[in-house]
Amino acid sequence: MRVRLIGIGPGGPDDLTVAAVHALESVDVFLVPDKKRGVDDLVAVREQILRRHTSGSHRMIVVPDPPRDRNPERYGDEVRDWHAARAEAYETVLLEQVREDETVGFLVWGDPSLYDSTIRVVERILDRGRVRFDYDVVPGVSSVQLLAARHRLVLNTIGGPITVTTGRRLMQDVAAGASNIVVMLDGGLACADLDGAWNIWWGANLGTDDEELVAGPLAEVLPAIREARARAKGARGWVMDTYLLRRG
Amino acid sequence: MRVRLIGIGPGGPDDLTVAAVHALESVDVFLVPDKKRGVDDLVAVREQILRRHTSGSHRMIVVPDPPRDRNPERYGDEVRDWHAARAEAYETVLLEQVREDETVGFLVWGDPSLYDSTIRVVERILDRGRVRFDYDVVPGVSSVQLLAARHRLVLNTIGGPITVTTGRRLMQDVAAGASNIVVMLDGGLACADLDGAWNIWWGANLGTDDEELVAGPLAEVLPAIREARARAKGARGWVMDTYLLRRG
Ligand SMILES: C[S@@+](CC[C@H](N)C(=O)[O-])C[C@H]1O[C@@H](n2cnc3c(N)ncnc32)[C@H](O)[C@@H]1O
Ligand SMILES: C[S@@+](CC[C@H](N)C(=O)[O-])C[C@H]1O[C@@H](n2cnc3c(N)ncnc32)[C@H](O)[C@@H]1O
Repeated sequence: MRVRLIGIGPGGPDDLTVAAVHALESVDVFLVPDKKRGVDDLVAVREQILRRHTSGSHRMIVVPDPPRDRNPERYGDEVRDWHAARAEAYETVLLEQVREDETVGFLVWGDPSLYDSTIRVVERILDRGRVRFDYDVVPGVSSVQLLAARHRLVLNTIGGPITVTTGRRLMQDVAAGASNIVVMLDGGLACADLDGAWNIWWGANLGTDDEELVAGPLAEVLPAIREARARAKGARGWVMDTYLLRRG
Repeated sequence: MRVRLIGIGPGGPDDLTVAAVHALESVDVFLVPDKKRGVDDLVAVREQILRRHTSGSHRMIVVPDPPRDRNPERYGDEVRDWHAARAEAYETVLLEQVREDETVGFLVWGDPSLYDSTIRVVERILDRGRVRFDYDVVPGVSSVQLLAARHRLVLNTIGGPITVTTGRRLMQDVAAGASNIVVMLDGGLACADLDGAWNIWWGANLGTDDEELVAGPLAEVLPAIREARARAKGARGWVMDTYLLRRG
């Protein structure tokens, strides 16, 4: 058995690489998590990508996603439990529904190396030792890069560093001295609590037809960002946003 | 006039997106810097990409690259002077050799948002005010993402931050507390000077046929990295490497 983790980019049907298209064509069975959280639209994007870029001669197995506590006491532990549950669910499918000579594909949103669990879950399946396979990873454009492209931004200042972090960690990283920061996984605009002068380049639902972009001094543009965020959510039923903060 | 900055990925001819392929097809004139520094091979990769992914009905103008001091006293100033000189060189070509109704393309190595000067140079041309155009940026997979894919790495620890920096800045960022660090633009393995226990995932000339990968505890694998670096350089006449460091 062979397993391929394929980065499909952050939302647009052509935002995946030619190498990723070739990888899609090599897959016999796609395993797709069934999120049941009103994000049918993400499933639709995946289907659009498969329709556009493959001949359609593959199977698709929807695997129910284990339930997840979104605001747990101990974030890391909760994430690890959820990885374990997901690994078990996939293992069952691999054992029962996939033949030894088949190639299995996972479609990974954006780039598999950035705040995504698929690599960790696949490693866990291997650790469990009940299914054997080789796997490879095909990189994809991340949402951060699409954000930068839309704002025509260079993420680094000349010769300077970039901190990539989560909404949850933002205050801590700023306290440690970070002044050029990409924020992901932020459910509620953690940047609103920042002191001092910052500039922001913000984007939501990038790559979709309802993409939203706002840039400017943080204090001035926060209301516009809140409106745009609500608009993106209204248009598609979900919102994912990411932004660059730079001390002004 | 329209200008497009197209990310072509970090080395492999299929490591660019389908959107980037469409963008290549829309270009009438490609401007390519002539580096004259023994990096003909990089020019060859660009040509291979154009041969493979376009019909070939474009012009190609090679623009001599202004000379550059690689070890200046004041890094930022030197970079800015060099951007200014490059902007002037491109401006001349745009004024003299490109028609008003044409689309100009720049092929950008990796992703245009990461330690690349093309966006800054294009902004400078606009600032000079002698040529007018709209421009857009098409994102590409960066060398960092290909590094992660080859090592099947997630760049972040669970919920943790990532610092992306240069060889020149590494010690400073470590002193400030960074413990999960991607290093680019490092001509001489700055990581060799680190104290303490670190793990490294290193790669050179990623995406080419002579790609090199080494991973393990830093102190143990440094000799293997030096050998692999020399091998990559020997094979192609140039070496570009990037790596993830994580406190062990
Ligand atoms: C679980 S992470 C996955 C990131 C993904 N691997 C990538 O490379 O973009 C999800 C986060 O990515 C960002 N994100 C993903 N898709 C996005 C999009 N289309 N527009 C804006 N942000 C997006 C948001 O910060 C979101 O909270
Ligand atoms: C001027 S920066 C450009 C980076 C590029 N924009 C990107 O997205 O990868 C050049 C640095 O990128 C890294 N790099 C570029 N191509 C590479 C490759 N094929 N293999 C390893 N590292 C590479 C090296 O750290 C090199 O010093």
